[in-house]
Amino acid sequence: MQELKERIVKEGKVLPGNIIKVDGFLNHRVDVSLLRSMAREFRGYFADKGVTMVMTVEASGIALAAIVAEEMGVPLLFAKKAKSDNIEGGLVKSEIYSYTYKKKVTLLVSAEWLSPSDRVLVVDDFMANGEAIRGLIEIVKQVGAEVVGVGIAIEKGYQGGGDRLREKGINVRSLAIIESAEPGKIVFREEQ
Amino acid sequence: MQELKERIVKEGKVLPGNIIKVDGFLNHRVDVSLLRSMAREFRGYFADKGVTMVMTVEASGIALAAIVAEEMGVPLLFAKKAKSDNIEGGLVKSEIYSYTYKKKVTLLVSAEWLSPSDRVLVVDDFMANGEAIRGLIEIVKQVGAEVVGVGIAIEKGYQGGGDRLREKGINVRSLAIIESAEPGKIVFREEQ
Repeated sequence: MQELKERIVKEGKVLPGNIIKVDGFLNHRVDVSLLRSMAREFRGYFADKGVTMVMTVEASGIALAAIVAEEMGVPLLFAKKAKSDNIEGGLVKSEIYSYTYKKKVTLLVSAEWLSPSDRVLVVDDFMANGEAIRGLIEIVKQVGAEVVGVGIAIEKGYQGGGDRLREKGINVRSLAIIESAEPGKIVFREEQ
Repeated sequence: MQELKERIVKEGKVLPGNIIKVDGFLNHRVDVSLLRSMAREFRGYFADKGVTMVMTVEASGIALAAIVAEEMGVPLLFAKKAKSDNIEGGLVKSEIYSYTYKKKVTLLVSAEWLSPSDRVLVVDDFMANGEAIRGLIEIVKQVGAEVVGVGIAIEKGYQGGGDRLREKGINVRSLAIIESAEPGKIVFREEQ
C-alpha cells in the first residue's frame, strides 16, 4: 500500500536491534484516517471470505483492528495478555514468546465469544517473528473456528514470521513488507 | 445514552467486588457499531471545544478512543503502561494506582507527540476510582497542554472518581453512570 510505505519512509525511524519506530502515526500517536485507508484495503482483500469476527491482541493492534471490524461490519475480539483477574473461567489460551518483553506471555480469550462457526480475520499493526499471530491462530483453532485471513499493517519480512505462516497455507496480507532496514534506507518487498 | 444503558442491563453481569462485566460488547468482544454511536454522542458534547487530540491509555480504551478520534477528525494518542523498551527517551510520566492489577503503574507518553498547544479530549471505556484518567490529565498538564473534556462510556458513580474530577472543574461526560449494581439490578444516575 503506497500511502503506508510513504509514511514509513517519511516518518519511520530505524533503531538498533532492527526496531522500526512508527510511533508517530501507527502505535503510539495514531493517524486514524490512515487506519481507515488501511481498513479499506483489507476489506478489498477479504470481502469475499465471509468474515464474522476480527481478532487482535492487546494493545497496539486494537485501534487498527477496531476500524477494520467496523469496515467489515463485524465485531472485534481482542485477546488479553494474562495478568488481569477481570476475566473469569471459560478461557481459551495460547502461550507465545514476546520478543518485545523478552518473556513468555499467555494470550487469553473467553470461550463465550468465539464459536466454531466463526470465520476470523486476524489483524495486527506489526508482525516480526509472528508469535502473536501464531497464538491467535492457535486460539481460533482450539474452538474449532477458522482463520480465513491475516491482515498486517507492517511486516518485517526479514524476521520470517509472515512467510512461515504463508508456507502453512494461511492467507497473510501485509500492507508493507520491509525486507531490510538501516537508518535512512528502508527496502520494501515488491508486491506480487 | 439510552442505547448503552439498555445494553448494560441486557448483557452486563455484576460480579462480586463491584465488578461490572460488559466484555460481550465493550472491552473484550467489542461491538464497533455501538462504539460509533457513542463517538457521535461525544462529538455532540465536545464539538465546540477545539479538540486537537484524543488521548486514552492502553488497552481496553483504545477501540473506543480510536473511533472517537476519527469522529472528531483528530489523531489518537494512547499512553503506554511502563514495561516495553520500545519507547526511548523524552517521556512524560505519571504514576497511578491500578485497582485492576492492585499495584502502581506508570503511564508513559512520548513528549514528542504532545505539544503545549494541544487541546485534549481524554477518553476511556470505564471509570471507577478515576486513577487512569487522573494520570492522563497529569501528563497533559506536565507539557502545558489543556484537557478540554473527559468522555467515558461507563462510570461507576459509587466509586467517586468522576465526581472528584467534576469538583475540580473538569468537564466529565459519561454515557452511563452506574449508581449501584447488584445481580439483576443496575441503577443509573439520572441525566442532568
